[in-house]
Parts: sequence; C-alpha cells; structure tokens
Amino acid sequence: MDVTASVIAYFSARQCASQWQVFLLSTALELEDRLPIAERRHFMRSVGRRFGRALPLPDCAKLGDISRAMNEIWTRLDWGWVEISDETDHLRLRHYCAPLEAAFGRPAQDWAPAVLEGVYQQWFEQLGAGSRLQVTQVSGFDAMGVELRLGVPA
Amino acid sequence: MDVTASVIAYFSARQCASQWQVFLLSTALELEDRLPIAERRHFMRSVGRRFGRALPLPDCAKLGDISRAMNEIWTRLDWGWVEISDETDHLRLRHYCAPLEAAFGRPAQDWAPAVLEGVYQQWFEQLGAGSRLQVTQVSGFDAMGVELRLGVPA
Amino acid sequence: MDVTASVIAYFSARQCASQWQVFLLSTALELEDRLPIAERRHFMRSVGRRFGRALPLPDCAKLGDISRAMNEIWTRLDWGWVEISDETDHLRLRHYCAPLEAAFGRPAQDWAPAVLEGVYQQWFEQLGAGSRLQVTQVSGFDAMGVELRLGVPA
Amino acid sequence: MDVTASVIAYFSARQCASQWQVFLLSTALELEDRLPIAERRHFMRSVGRRFGRALPLPDCAKLGDISRAMNEIWTRLDWGWVEISDETDHLRLRHYCAPLEAAFGRPAQDWAPAVLEGVYQQWFEQLGAGSRLQVTQVSGFDAMGVELRLGVPA
Repeated sequence: MDVTASVIAYFSARQCASQWQVFLLSTALELEDRLPIAERRHFMRSVGRRFGRALPLPDCAKLGDISRAMNEIWTRLDWGWVEISDETDHLRLRHYCAPLEAAFGRPAQDWAPAVLEGVYQQWFEQLGAGSRLQVTQVSGFDAMGVELRLGVPA
Repeated sequence: MDVTASVIAYFSARQCASQWQVFLLSTALELEDRLPIAERRHFMRSVGRRFGRALPLPDCAKLGDISRAMNEIWTRLDWGWVEISDETDHLRLRHYCAPLEAAFGRPAQDWAPAVLEGVYQQWFEQLGAGSRLQVTQVSGFDAMGVELRLGVPA
Repeated sequence: MDVTASVIAYFSARQCASQWQVFLLSTALELEDRLPIAERRHFMRSVGRRFGRALPLPDCAKLGDISRAMNEIWTRLDWGWVEISDETDHLRLRHYCAPLEAAFGRPAQDWAPAVLEGVYQQWFEQLGAGSRLQVTQVSGFDAMGVELRLGVPA
Repeated sequence: MDVTASVIAYFSARQCASQWQVFLLSTALELEDRLPIAERRHFMRSVGRRFGRALPLPDCAKLGDISRAMNEIWTRLDWGWVEISDETDHLRLRHYCAPLEAAFGRPAQDWAPAVLEGVYQQWFEQLGAGSRLQVTQVSGFDAMGVELRLGVPA
C-alpha cells in the first residue's frame, strides 16, 4: 500500500466517533441476523428520511445553493460532502467520505448506504421534487464515495 | 434550575458524539414505529450481547477487579462507569452517565437501557456466571444512573 | 463524594478533547517554567483576544441577544456557556463549564482563565464598548464557573 | 484537485478537535508575534519533551516493538503514526498524519513540528539512547508526513 492509500485508510478507519463504533457495528450485525437485505435497505432508508426531517434544509432552488446547504449539514456532522451535477434527465449525486464503513463494517456496505437514499429523498421532496422522482444508489460504496441519482425510475 | 442541575444538564445533553446523535435518534423512532416495546428491549439486549462479545473483559475474579476492567472499557468509550456491590444473593450494579438519553431521546429510556442488560449478561457469562443468573434492569433510567441486578430471577 | 459530585467530576475530567489534553497540559507547565504569573495571564489574555477576533459576534445590542450570540459560539466548541446580568454600573458575567481545568490542570487555574478575559474584552469592544471598560476576572475558577465583570476599573 | 486529493484535504482539515482549533491557532499567532523562529522551535521542543514524559513508553528494545508502542499512543490520540527504519548510522523516522497543520495553520509548519522532535528525543532517551544522539527534523511538514532522524548531529 503506498503512502496515499495508507493515509486514506488511517483517516477512514478513525472517522467514526469511538463512542458509537462498537454499538453501531453490533447493531449492523443484529440487523443482518434478523432481516433479509431488502428489508435492511428499507430500514436504513426510513431512518434516513427521519434524519432528513430532523435536519431540514433552508429554502433554496439553485443547484449550487442546494449542495451548499446540504454540505453545511454534512460537514458539521463529519459525514463527508456531496457534489451534484445536472444530467438533463436526472441529477447525479456523488457523496464522498460518509463514515458508513467505519461505523457498520465492510459487509454492511451492501445495505447501510441506503440511509443516504432516504436523507436525499426527504430533502428533495422538501424542496418540491414530485414523489415520482426517486433517489437511488447506483454504485457500490467505498471509502472514497458512492453515487446516487435523482430521477424517474427506469 | 439551580447551577448544579444546569451543569449536569449541559454535560448530559452534549455527551452523545454529534456525528451520530441524529442518526441514533432517528433509529430509535423507527424502532418505536415498527416494534412493540418488549421486542425493542429484546433487540437492544441482543445488540448489547454483541457489544460485550466485541469488547471482552480480561480474566478476573474479584469484584474490584471486575468493575475496574469494566470501567476501563466504559470510560474509554465515554459510556460512564459502574459500581458493583455484593448483596449476598445477587449483585447490584449501578451504572452512571451512560449516554443513552442524549443519543436516543427521553421516550426511549423505557427500552434503550436494555443494551446495558445485554452487555453485562455477556460479560458475567464470559466470567463464568451460570446462565440461570440473569441481568435485569431494576430502576428507571435518568441522567444520573440506572440500577441493574445479577441474580436468579424472582 | 456523593453521586452529584461524582457525576460532575466525571464529566469535567472528560471535557477536554483527548487529542490535545497532554499537549495543553505540557504547554501550561512550560509556560509556568518560563514566565511569572502576571506574564502568563497577559499571554492568555492576548490569546483570548485573537480567539475573539477569529470568532466575531454578529451585530447585536440587547443583553439577551448578546449572550445568545456568545453562547452559540461557546456551546458549538463545548466551552460551556455564559450568563450576563446588568448591575447598573457594570455587567456581571458568569461563565460555566469552560474546559480549562481539564485542559491545563488545577494549578493553572490561577492564570489560564485570563483567556476568557481576552475573549470577552475583544467581543465587547467589537460591540462598541469604549476601551475604558475592562473585563476582569473577579472570582476563582472552579468546575462550576468563574465570574468576570465588565466596567470601569476601580 | 482530483478525488484523492480532495478526500485527503477533507480529512486533514477536520483532524484537529474543533474544541481547540481556534485556541491553538491563536496561540500559534501569539507565539509568532513574540518569539523569533528559533525560540518558537525551542519552545515546541520543550513542550514535546514534557509530552513524552507524561506518556512514557513501556520497556522495549526491538525496533518493531518500539514503533508499535509509539503508535499505540499516537493513534489513541489521533496524532497519526510513525514508521522507523534502521539506516545503520542513524534511525529514520517518518511520521504521518500529525494534526499540526489543522491545529496551528500552514505558516506554523516551519516551527510547530519541533514538538515531534521533543517527544521522540524524550522517548529515545528514556529507552536508553545516549544524549549525544539527537532527534532532528530533516524534511518539511505536509499533510502526508514529516521525516526526522535520530543520530549523532553532523
């Protein structure tokens, strides 16, 4: 592993507040024992919607203002940051440095990132997106980032 | 509110790492929506057992060594501390300053402290307690503390 | 020590972020070795003025707004909170739960709290207080609080 | 800036506990105002020696054990980690991810890293290095790392 990779691994592994790391990992293992993966994703998505309701965005309309408002919240909590681009028929969201792997462990990266789907779904509906528009995770999750899209489902 | 009460309220409210407070509160609300209280307690107790397995105690036998070993773990995570006393036919555990109210909110204090039951159950079994001995929460939870007992259920 | 005192001692001792506790204590000991106490107070007061410049208040005039604005900064940093009262010929400031003892050690409480004098001096001058008005620490410092006054020096 | 650089910049900027960032930056500026750079380096080196005395290493002799013991302390405090290699006539120390830039600002990187010289000097003397052997910083400091050597000064 070269220095850059070591540095990123060091920071990533420490990103979850130590007060909750063992609790969150234990919770992930318990959910994996109890629920099939689709229900785990649904659970995390619902938690994400509540998260988005608890931390509402201020009114904003332009994409630059929206991502700034989201990032004010994300960076205050040390949940990384998002970059949003307009791809004509959908929005592309790239979320970097969410502390999900440090918290829930590597195997949970198949389902834990659904919490981000829920937060973004809630935030975009609050900003006026019709409910036909859905936020969907469209890439795997790794230390560097995860990609989501907001658009009409295919 | 006098100064002492204000100081304790200040510290208690801030005890949960801000990175996870909204996530944990949202998770508590989601569990309250999905599960009756007995199943929520059972869920938290199972999470607590996993927590105890992930952070095993070193070998120890005397009560003083046991509480010292537990408190080495609790204070490292900022989960407060425990005092254990031998009441002849059971052990009395008094756990102070667990960050559960700051994390899960006041209403969840009816069920979230079951995570402590699970951790202590796991730890005492690991130390050799027979499975007839059960850890049970025997007081309400407040900022100051919660009482549990290890013994044969009544 | 009763439970209340134990709880406050637990929280106070842990209030300084562990990343900097040993560094800050070492810095305090080094300053004690190099400077007489009056110069240590002057050093901390100057640091406090820079601190106040780096975190300026928004414009406000009423005492309630001023203390709210200060507390928005103090609580975000986990430096406690202040209560201000108008005593006709001076303002009385009571600052609670500053993390100074956890950071700099008990002996440094003779001089380290001068950092608060500097911050308040800077903030009140920024709000328009004439430079004849001085912020002075008028009580000892303990876990619970410290008292300062803003007024014409006696 | 590519993604890797953005990720490292994000983590580096947030590495200093927010409770002390403004205080530490203010202290750095005050020291820059008062002391020439050689005395600032000397000050930080002395603070580092006290830091090393406050957190002594356990007894160890092999290079692998020494770096493991040091890293147990460094990572617990989130001060990064060190790699040590034996270069026959000196030891080469490469320290990664020390939170010094996030704490003291970019300009202070000319002198603040002397705190690491002091810590390592103290630790190696404690392990039995003769006082003829000096720890000296031999590279600039950046987010990724800094190099020091332990050996007879040239």
